[in-house]
Amino acid sequence: MPQCSATDGGYTARELAETLGGRLVGEGERRVAGLAPLAAAGPGDLTFVTDPDRHAEEIENCAAGVILVPATADLPVIPGRPLIVLQDVYLGYARASQCLGARRRLRPAGVHPGAFVDPGASVAADASVAVGAVIGAGTVIGAGAVVSAHCVVGEGVTIGAGTFLYPRVTLLDGVEVGERCILHSGCVIGADGFGFASAGGNGWEKIEQLGRVVIGSNVEIGANTTIDRGALQATRIGTGVKIDNLVHVAHNVEIGDHTAIAGCVGIAGSARIGAHCAIGGGAGILGHLSIADHVTIHAMTLVTRSIDRAGHYASGVPHQEARLWNRMLARLRRLAR
Amino acid sequence: MPQCSATDGGYTARELAETLGGRLVGEGERRVAGLAPLAAAGPGDLTFVTDPDRHAEEIENCAAGVILVPATADLPVIPGRPLIVLQDVYLGYARASQCLGARRRLRPAGVHPGAFVDPGASVAADASVAVGAVIGAGTVIGAGAVVSAHCVVGEGVTIGAGTFLYPRVTLLDGVEVGERCILHSGCVIGADGFGFASAGGNGWEKIEQLGRVVIGSNVEIGANTTIDRGALQATRIGTGVKIDNLVHVAHNVEIGDHTAIAGCVGIAGSARIGAHCAIGGGAGILGHLSIADHVTIHAMTLVTRSIDRAGHYASGVPHQEARLWNRMLARLRRLAR
Amino acid sequence: MPQCSATDGGYTARELAETLGGRLVGEGERRVAGLAPLAAAGPGDLTFVTDPDRHAEEIENCAAGVILVPATADLPVIPGRPLIVLQDVYLGYARASQCLGARRRLRPAGVHPGAFVDPGASVAADASVAVGAVIGAGTVIGAGAVVSAHCVVGEGVTIGAGTFLYPRVTLLDGVEVGERCILHSGCVIGADGFGFASAGGNGWEKIEQLGRVVIGSNVEIGANTTIDRGALQATRIGTGVKIDNLVHVAHNVEIGDHTAIAGCVGIAGSARIGAHCAIGGGAGILGHLSIADHVTIHAMTLVTRSIDRAGHYASGVPHQEARLWNRMLARLRRLAR
Repeated sequence: MPQCSATDGGYTARELAETLGGRLVGEGERRVAGLAPLAAAGPGDLTFVTDPDRHAEEIENCAAGVILVPATADLPVIPGRPLIVLQDVYLGYARASQCLGARRRLRPAGVHPGAFVDPGASVAADASVAVGAVIGAGTVIGAGAVVSAHCVVGEGVTIGAGTFLYPRVTLLDGVEVGERCILHSGCVIGADGFGFASAGGNGWEKIEQLGRVVIGSNVEIGANTTIDRGALQATRIGTGVKIDNLVHVAHNVEIGDHTAIAGCVGIAGSARIGAHCAIGGGAGILGHLSIADHVTIHAMTLVTRSIDRAGHYASGVPHQEARLWNRMLARLRRLAR
Repeated sequence: MPQCSATDGGYTARELAETLGGRLVGEGERRVAGLAPLAAAGPGDLTFVTDPDRHAEEIENCAAGVILVPATADLPVIPGRPLIVLQDVYLGYARASQCLGARRRLRPAGVHPGAFVDPGASVAADASVAVGAVIGAGTVIGAGAVVSAHCVVGEGVTIGAGTFLYPRVTLLDGVEVGERCILHSGCVIGADGFGFASAGGNGWEKIEQLGRVVIGSNVEIGANTTIDRGALQATRIGTGVKIDNLVHVAHNVEIGDHTAIAGCVGIAGSARIGAHCAIGGGAGILGHLSIADHVTIHAMTLVTRSIDRAGHYASGVPHQEARLWNRMLARLRRLAR
Repeated sequence: MPQCSATDGGYTARELAETLGGRLVGEGERRVAGLAPLAAAGPGDLTFVTDPDRHAEEIENCAAGVILVPATADLPVIPGRPLIVLQDVYLGYARASQCLGARRRLRPAGVHPGAFVDPGASVAADASVAVGAVIGAGTVIGAGAVVSAHCVVGEGVTIGAGTFLYPRVTLLDGVEVGERCILHSGCVIGADGFGFASAGGNGWEKIEQLGRVVIGSNVEIGANTTIDRGALQATRIGTGVKIDNLVHVAHNVEIGDHTAIAGCVGIAGSARIGAHCAIGGGAGILGHLSIADHVTIHAMTLVTRSIDRAGHYASGVPHQEARLWNRMLARLRRLAR
């Protein structure tokens, strides 16, 4: 994350160029406090262009205060509208968005009188605990961490410095969350894994789930996502992992550093996913298998066996007109006879 | 919604016939307060039949107080059991269910002393705010709106008149919800979109999500569904849209008026879905594409490119006996070699 | 569930052998209080081995206090490390985990002063209601039941004896939950089913959902799972049913006894699923169909029509390298022309 002071007054083009490591072209004193797409940006807004050739006319006509442009661009300098030239505009946009937008997660330090903090919990002096938050005994909340309204944090939980819990996050007993994580509303970390032994005709006997969940630093976890505790040892989420909404991570799963997982993915128990992977939306990963580093899984793919080599893998079926699709299915069925 | 006075005493057949715009056959003074299927209905219940020929015998033997029947039916009038003849029985059933059932969402006006309403929020005098609800500064709650227990409503949120939030709904900062909407428990509106820029080998840099979510009127949103805020502008849900449970709507998505989306659907970022569409359960829609109006997507279909024409689209694979299915897969693999 | 006294001091090998119905080999006084996998177990831990031949060396070197082994094993008795010989080791492990781990769900009896219990509710004297829990009028909470922090329980709800609600469970009006159930955080039971009648070009008219949800005993329901109320009658979950996280059960569905449903499954309205079925993760089941007893559905299968016979059914497509997969799709398309 870039070092940019939190301020309501925005930034000058010169400050932003320095923070983003870009080259300033034009007036450095121009000040922006907002961020907007090219067509909607006003004089107080920063905007960005990744493909200037395609948007030449819009750039000329746009009203933005400052524009981030790629080093390859050959743009005329327009008086009064500075450019910041960057090697990687999209990355620059991300960092600028943090300068201009991360303030929205600032909260006043202290424990709200309407929170319920167990006397056996330890809350850093500059952490923030909002109304209705419940925090159990033996839990440690690090410096600058934020626990928003109606979060329920169990016993013996660790929340690292600078980690932000949006409202209504649930961390069950013993969960460990690293530093500078962001957990979105409704996610449930540390529910019991789905473990039962067959008792023959008498149904299922519960296997108590006695492991933990250990989450690294710089992790983001989406709304209503669930990550179950391990059966005996820990479910582990590596550093820098990004998980979208409504994802299911079963017990004993391990996810390597910097892997990104899109919405609605389901990962079955004891799967081990490498680092720097990308898992497309709606994919399903069966249990007790391993996926190598740098693997990309396309949307709605079913991973049924281990993947040993980096690369792209798929089994999602693109839509067709229903009539054509039915014909394709019929042919396939005929083939199999 | 039909104009029917909220009452515990139920309605006479005559009142219902008038409200539903149907033709009364038989005694108009018969009174019903409940709604039940044909086989289970008692004398105090309304029931309905969409296909009287198929159910002739059951109709004759049923104990229902009043029956909604189609105009095409040729039914004998049975003394003491009035019929209401309708062009569209199923629509009549829906409207009757509202007369007899919408009362369950009535709540006493006023703010519960166990709610936490920021002094900077504005709550209409006849709105209802339940115990444990949290409402942030600058939020406006319209006439007759209901915020149930443990809802968390952020800052600068707008909740339109007559909108009903079931318990444990989360609306994050700046979300705008129209009039007469129903939001079910556990849904999260306005969590951050899943936006990151690659920082090369160093993982992911967060793109702050600075847009809003704007939801039209007469929208229903299912339990534990998530609708993310836009990156820069708004995620938009049109008027009359109906979304089922556990649906994921990513940032910048736009959904046209009166579109219905079944459970477990995932819609990726910046997809634009037309009006009057129907999306089957478990379908996945990739990002940055457009779907025309009046498109039907079958269950578990993966939409991979834009759809320009109304019609039915599919790619879901019907189940087979596992042995046959494995043979089909083997044939397909052989074909590809 | 085995009869084992709740204690912090653990159990002797003799006590465990008796409780689990196994044969003790070696010293019966050895005491264990924890449970760990073979490689990690210490002297105070119980461990288990289902396939001793494969793990002969690890068994010899392991430091576990007590080992559960199958009757078929031919293991040398090592002084100081008792064995418990069982017909079904995995089932024994499940039962031992309950002895050693079910204590974590013990809660002090009584209603926390920070809970909101309607005077018209009835809470058993030895039940536990935690801070922030909300309980409506006419609700009955059975002996020894636990309602954790920030659960919202509506009006006229029944919670059976010994049932445990983790934090942030929502039970809406009229829901009935049997005895000894476990409901995980974020699940929503009794939200409205997704029912609308088309009003032609004017969109959708809501069908009020007036049925209930009835859940048997010994049921477990995963985090953020949703089970909708019936339209007119009840959605029914049988005895001993186990449902994983993020599962969607639509209105009027009936699920037979002891059926197990893995994560991310979606079941559409009015589907009837038999007893002793197993539904794999991410599967989708269309509405208004029946599935026989003892049916196994593989992961990510789409069930499109009724299944009358026990057996295995599938339509999930195993992943391929993306290039190969694209070739397979191209062949299939060509076939259909």
